[in-house]
Amino acid sequence: MKPASGIVFGRQAQSGRGRMHGVSENRNCPLSIDPQWSRRAFIDAVPACSGRDRPGSRFPRGIPLPTMDRRQAMERLKINLIGPGKVGLTILRRIAMTGACTVQDIAGRSIEKAEAAVAFVGAGAAVRSVADMRQADLWLLTVPDSQVATAAAELAATPTASDTPSVAVHCSGFLPADEMKPLRALGWQLASLHPVLTFAEPAKAVSHFDGVSCGMEGDAGALALVEPLVTEIGGMPFGIRSEAKAIYHAAAVFSSNFNVVLQAIAREAWAKAGVPDDVAAALNATLMSACTDNVMELGPARALTGPASRGDQRVVDEQEAAVRSWHPDAGEIYREMSVLAQRLKRTGGTLE
Amino acid sequence: MKPASGIVFGRQAQSGRGRMHGVSENRNCPLSIDPQWSRRAFIDAVPACSGRDRPGSRFPRGIPLPTMDRRQAMERLKINLIGPGKVGLTILRRIAMTGACTVQDIAGRSIEKAEAAVAFVGAGAAVRSVADMRQADLWLLTVPDSQVATAAAELAATPTASDTPSVAVHCSGFLPADEMKPLRALGWQLASLHPVLTFAEPAKAVSHFDGVSCGMEGDAGALALVEPLVTEIGGMPFGIRSEAKAIYHAAAVFSSNFNVVLQAIAREAWAKAGVPDDVAAALNATLMSACTDNVMELGPARALTGPASRGDQRVVDEQEAAVRSWHPDAGEIYREMSVLAQRLKRTGGTLE
Repeated sequence: MKPASGIVFGRQAQSGRGRMHGVSENRNCPLSIDPQWSRRAFIDAVPACSGRDRPGSRFPRGIPLPTMDRRQAMERLKINLIGPGKVGLTILRRIAMTGACTVQDIAGRSIEKAEAAVAFVGAGAAVRSVADMRQADLWLLTVPDSQVATAAAELAATPTASDTPSVAVHCSGFLPADEMKPLRALGWQLASLHPVLTFAEPAKAVSHFDGVSCGMEGDAGALALVEPLVTEIGGMPFGIRSEAKAIYHAAAVFSSNFNVVLQAIAREAWAKAGVPDDVAAALNATLMSACTDNVMELGPARALTGPASRGDQRVVDEQEAAVRSWHPDAGEIYREMSVLAQRLKRTGGTLE
Repeated sequence: MKPASGIVFGRQAQSGRGRMHGVSENRNCPLSIDPQWSRRAFIDAVPACSGRDRPGSRFPRGIPLPTMDRRQAMERLKINLIGPGKVGLTILRRIAMTGACTVQDIAGRSIEKAEAAVAFVGAGAAVRSVADMRQADLWLLTVPDSQVATAAAELAATPTASDTPSVAVHCSGFLPADEMKPLRALGWQLASLHPVLTFAEPAKAVSHFDGVSCGMEGDAGALALVEPLVTEIGGMPFGIRSEAKAIYHAAAVFSSNFNVVLQAIAREAWAKAGVPDDVAAALNATLMSACTDNVMELGPARALTGPASRGDQRVVDEQEAAVRSWHPDAGEIYREMSVLAQRLKRTGGTLE
């Protein structure tokens, strides 16, 4: 199924499993929190409060606005957190601030960490282990990427939790929801949620969360639960193709981490050319800001300038030779980036 | 000679020819504009009005402040322009606005272009060819990089101009002053001057010129004339090693042009992952701005985050494979940039 907005969710696109606005294929959805509301009923209803018509909503239009009953139902949903790191703390604090749903149990590597998390979030109860956690409607697994599979397996093996199929969400930008598949075998619905924000300081991240783009992919039923929650806490959800989650994450690495590497090479080259450090920092600031402005205003292809893009082969060749004799690795990158710069100017893209 | 500020100018560093504060070795310096002021006397005096003690001056300290006589002497210096493109127009307009020196003749590819330049600058006289230009104290050759050598040769072959050795300056960011060496054989002093500013619109560039960093290298006598002029029109001069001019320019290409290429790859990767264009643009803006802020605040090594820098080899390997199967050239860049990212985190630099 392809939603009206043009977003294709990976799992749907791959298998046709689940639907955007309901999980009627899944016979395992049990009764939930409120006797009036089965989880199936809630999940069926959730797209109605999916935040569409809010600026920035990337989800299908044409669904009725939320009613107060639905909002109240969402508030009664219980959320558990495993791994109270920076991302988890930020999301849970936003949930507690907005009352989007009910923060229940928090488990970390130690009871002290869980207690500190409860103090920061201002809600919930610290527990010693996953085995001590009560049943919940939504489980947030904000552990490091390398531990997502282990945490999901542990959850699947824990009787209290696995008794009742629920919704599990991890926050890796790289891994798909599928990383938690031991839970799917038990009838759980899985999603990944990736807020594009620097989480160096949770208190700062909490205050900057409004309007933050949040990439999501996974099972339709999980997305139907998580998407309105993200909107409720101030995020702007958008869809990612599950099968291209690694490419999605690589995009951020190219845009951000590798940009830092380029700036490091530039600083070293200026130093080599005798430019004092503070002047190099000023040049760096000027060029990076102008670059951001130009890319934003014109898009990458039209923002591109420089010898490669204007086809000045003498400069490209002599410069490559100069860079290579100083810094062979940077020389190789110079050559490859120049090829892509020429292609970008010629065709509007870097892909041949 | 190594000036007190620690800047070593290439030609001085290479050959010991010329001195920062005078050109007494050069017996060719003739009388100039004002009977009271020989050019040698002026050039000897110029470092006294070199703008030192102004914030951002990168030139030696400890020289007396300018006197009104010296300022007046500078105002009387005559400047000719060959090649009234964007850079030349911007510099000449700033000179006319500030009265830093006297705009004399302007020659372009046609008399119409020269006349339009005179109108923009608000000073000077349009002439049909270099042969029609009067003698001047400073010649600005703002032609494309590929024509600097030709323009210098033409100037050297023009009787009126070459009668009297003078100072010639080009504005290429890539070429050293040496590109104009036919003039040096006649006793001229040469420099290159590279304002680090986007010159897409000269009117805008004129209004943004204050505080612009201006890279300079060349002969001491030429620098002694140009440096106070740059300061007078609002620029902030700094020195470049002549022999590393190509590396200096490559730094800007890495910082700016290649950053644009990375952003193009990122946009294409987001599109591949199903992220809508407007969301991709928003992600791009968020990441580029955060990257600029972090590099400025922390420097490149400390600003670096991401899987390569934290040694998450599984993500690096799987992501490289995913990128490579989608976009082989980007896959290769992914691999090389990841190696440099790891090195930058480990050693604080990208150079092995």
